[in-house]
Amino acid sequence: MAISPAPVIYLVEPFGGSVRRQNVNMPHVFWDDAVVTRGDGVFESILIRDGKPVNLDKHLDRFVRSAALMDLPEPGREYWVRATEEAVADYCRERGGEEGVEAKCVWTLSRGRETTGVPTAWLSVRPIPEEVYRQRERGVSVLTTSRGYTVTGKASWMRESAKTLNYAATMAALRWAKSEGADDVIYVDETGRVLEGATSSVIMVKKGGRLRTPAPGPGVMAGTTQAALFELASSEGWKCKAKDIYHGELLKAESVWLVSSTRIATRVKRLDGTKLPAPDNESEIRELIYRAVN
Amino acid sequence: MAISPAPVIYLVEPFGGSVRRQNVNMPHVFWDDAVVTRGDGVFESILIRDGKPVNLDKHLDRFVRSAALMDLPEPGREYWVRATEEAVADYCRERGGEEGVEAKCVWTLSRGRETTGVPTAWLSVRPIPEEVYRQRERGVSVLTTSRGYTVTGKASWMRESAKTLNYAATMAALRWAKSEGADDVIYVDETGRVLEGATSSVIMVKKGGRLRTPAPGPGVMAGTTQAALFELASSEGWKCKAKDIYHGELLKAESVWLVSSTRIATRVKRLDGTKLPAPDNESEIRELIYRAVN
Repeated sequence: MAISPAPVIYLVEPFGGSVRRQNVNMPHVFWDDAVVTRGDGVFESILIRDGKPVNLDKHLDRFVRSAALMDLPEPGREYWVRATEEAVADYCRERGGEEGVEAKCVWTLSRGRETTGVPTAWLSVRPIPEEVYRQRERGVSVLTTSRGYTVTGKASWMRESAKTLNYAATMAALRWAKSEGADDVIYVDETGRVLEGATSSVIMVKKGGRLRTPAPGPGVMAGTTQAALFELASSEGWKCKAKDIYHGELLKAESVWLVSSTRIATRVKRLDGTKLPAPDNESEIRELIYRAVN
Repeated sequence: MAISPAPVIYLVEPFGGSVRRQNVNMPHVFWDDAVVTRGDGVFESILIRDGKPVNLDKHLDRFVRSAALMDLPEPGREYWVRATEEAVADYCRERGGEEGVEAKCVWTLSRGRETTGVPTAWLSVRPIPEEVYRQRERGVSVLTTSRGYTVTGKASWMRESAKTLNYAATMAALRWAKSEGADDVIYVDETGRVLEGATSSVIMVKKGGRLRTPAPGPGVMAGTTQAALFELASSEGWKCKAKDIYHGELLKAESVWLVSSTRIATRVKRLDGTKLPAPDNESEIRELIYRAVN
């Protein structure tokens, strides 16, 4: 990859207004924006591969669903698609072409400024962090941890399945993992049931060509990469199931993976200090996941 | 109060740099600020009365504590005090003097831009919303609700007591309350134990000059207004206790109040649809709370 010029930012006016490039060296978020004062907004992270957004429909679906759950105005699909296309085209052109260009595109929709009541929306396209490349290649060391809270599902207004910007606790968990010499966390509940990674879905590979992931629900965000993987894998004869996984099962699996849009796939090489040996089919699995996001 | 000119914003450079006014019509938060991408920052809301910040030491203490809990750099107390004084002085001057000037000052400390790693910090001084005045005067109708999750205290990295910007769930709870015709919520846990308001502490007044509030801990933020109230009330002979309150007790109390920096005190007039009649000592209690934040 060429040495990267600046990221590309596009503002997306709500309600079908203009889509336009924003100078990356100028701030555009106001002090009274709900995203700043309350973390009150939703987002999506989309992988760009060879100059094309991956899994675009799944991200659009989840973005629209998150917005609806949070009583935000419905994002106009056509505007987000157009803004993404334009921003990615700029990004690639400024790097000499689409080929081999990989990037991370983030969509943000905020409830907007308190003083105007108009939602703020934009997207950024930027290089994939070096750490992500390292983790794809080398795998990760993971600690399991409680989330610190249990979702009870007893509040009708609770919007657990919306992908909001409230990641302070997630960041604290990751700082803790790093301070313990690990790379990431997998959340488990009080009963040892596996939920998800800090910013990824957990995939367990079992003997006999079986793939498992915890079913989406309280504490488990529906993953776009996981969904794409299961679609492809099922069509190729893998037995794919979204059902409960318990902590002990991870240690006995053929392999355990964290999958997410940006990181695609990273194998869990160490879980709570225990080495998880590489399976014979490591490259087959990795390739399967990569093909799922092609 | 005079018709208000624009709010006043001051940027507070971290590590003891400059404190300077920011044009309120210009955005200053970047797209890659942690507060925007992760809600990763801490804040305080401070009441300004007659041109003076109220309970300043308590807010400084909690701000420093929140920052430490979130592994943010320690806010330099002298810079925040100076920035607050300068901003409030500007605010009052632009409104013709300090007398009778009431305002809301919000401090924000963000982990800062991903591309620079330098924390972003600023404060705003702005008018108290009209709704707050109405609620102070007329009281509020409140619904009790589960928080939607239970804090388990089982994650060592969890920073429940930090005042972070992750308020998306709180805002959803308030939208729900409003959609049900109420003004606010009081969170209760699975056992009916009272926790706190959406953005306030719960105070219960009982016969015999007794004040009660739920003890701070998981799910209950330590309140600066509550603390000031208990200090003053104790010194005047009220029996003040921070201990568990159960839902049923609220209905039998002499009166129930929500207290917070900006709102000061609002009486709960209706709880889950049941009218809570005004006690004989309503104005005495209100006056007591107001004197506590003088």
